Amino acid sequence: APSIQTSVAGQRVILVDHSDYLQAPADITKATVAGLVDHHKLGGLTTDEPIEVWVFPTGCTNTIIARMYTSAGILIPREIACGMLGAIISDTLLFRSPTTTQEDRDAAAKLAQTAGVEDIQAFGLKQLQAKSSIEGMSAINLLKQDLKTFDMHGQKVGVAQLELIDLSIVAARKDELLSAMKILKDEGYHSILLMLTDIGKQGTDLLVVSDNVRIIESAFGLKEIGDSVWLPGVVSRKKQVVPVLLRAFEGDRAQ
Amino acid sequence: APSIQTSVAGQRVILVDHSDYLQAPADITKATVAGLVDHHKLGGLTTDEPIEVWVFPTGCTNTIIARMYTSAGILIPREIACGMLGAIISDTLLFRSPTTTQEDRDAAAKLAQTAGVEDIQAFGLKQLQAKSSIEGMSAINLLKQDLKTFDMHGQKVGVAQLELIDLSIVAARKDELLSAMKILKDEGYHSILLMLTDIGKQGTDLLVVSDNVRIIESAFGLKEIGDSVWLPGVVSRKKQVVPVLLRAFEGDRAQ
Repeated sequence: APSIQTSVAGQRVILVDHSDYLQAPADITKATVAGLVDHHKLGGLTTDEPIEVWVFPTGCTNTIIARMYTSAGILIPREIACGMLGAIISDTLLFRSPTTTQEDRDAAAKLAQTAGVEDIQAFGLKQLQAKSSIEGMSAINLLKQDLKTFDMHGQKVGVAQLELIDLSIVAARKDELLSAMKILKDEGYHSILLMLTDIGKQGTDLLVVSDNVRIIESAFGLKEIGDSVWLPGVVSRKKQVVPVLLRAFEGDRAQ
Repeated sequence: APSIQTSVAGQRVILVDHSDYLQAPADITKATVAGLVDHHKLGGLTTDEPIEVWVFPTGCTNTIIARMYTSAGILIPREIACGMLGAIISDTLLFRSPTTTQEDRDAAAKLAQTAGVEDIQAFGLKQLQAKSSIEGMSAINLLKQDLKTFDMHGQKVGVAQLELIDLSIVAARKDELLSAMKILKDEGYHSILLMLTDIGKQGTDLLVVSDNVRIIESAFGLKEIGDSVWLPGVVSRKKQVVPVLLRAFEGDRAQ
């Protein structure tokens, strides 16, 4: 596995899969941002000089990286292709997420060929099952595993997500997860949301800990959701959750 | 000629050649930004949803637009190709600006072929000469013709540029231009700079009207420049002027 770098001061870096200082290492402002490769909303990055920006609304950043390889005329090594294929499967929930584009499917098919993967569906299901294995992990680790923090019109909002083959795996641990969310919230958050996304049923059980749960309710057009609510059809944080939250927080600020 | 739109409220727009609300129509925040095509530094744009971003450090945005045509598999119509060629010549000062990349040269050669332009150098010189014709234009119009306004670490700074075949054309009008700069500065600017760029000699006579001329001096490592200074080799606002100004204003704020 590659080493994890927590400090980037003084280095030239390319931001990948986000364009947001909040999601970068703490000393990112002391680094030179030389490029940006992403498929999320723009996070307000400013630079002093022109840089390379590869940002497109694909289902996975690796589809864009595949485009960069093609554009540069470089063949993708077999091991890298396999990792990139896994990333596309993970980000698109095996092409079921509404973020999926035709380019994601095409890139995955080409990467599978290079990686020697014959049956993408079988390979992908095995991968998603492995990712669903949460046994032995603490609630706080499950929460922080894929947590993203956003500045929503002045409020700090954390949105975590677990993508699971079947929610029965976590059903017994909801109280434990809510307790972990409350502890995390004390780190200056207005709201912590945890998306328990059921890949099979194509929906999300949304767990909510918030200073003002009404903003979350108004975002989704719901009432009295308490500490969790089932959102049918909602599987994408980026496309179905973050934009509606942003608009709700903007509306709240305008009042 | 295309019509000029000064209002974009309620529309879906693609920002082209800038990524900066300061350079967009006043009601840009009421529009939906659906894409961004640019070759300048990132200006801090945020969006609620992922968008298409084609930003690369080429000499001209039209080189990127040519890339978009190729990527989409669409042939460029002859009239559009001619306009795009003119834009690349203008932005790269006929390939002499340090911002020029090999991709700009290649795109221009291909566009010339489509447009039926046999001798790019002759075509380009005629274009730059026509652009140098400033007779009959008022000083304030000359100043505002290509003025860009930047937020430099909290200070409003305007940088205008005239690219001329030969500076003798404006030599007699410097006092008049400085007066126009002083009038413009009263619109809340910390500094107004006018780059009189000599394409032939490859340098810029920089006219300065500023609340604190020392920041401008420190940016270029100069002393006592008064209201104008010759900067040999400097022809690019984007690459040679704006980045050094940004660093100088940042340094000033840090004191």
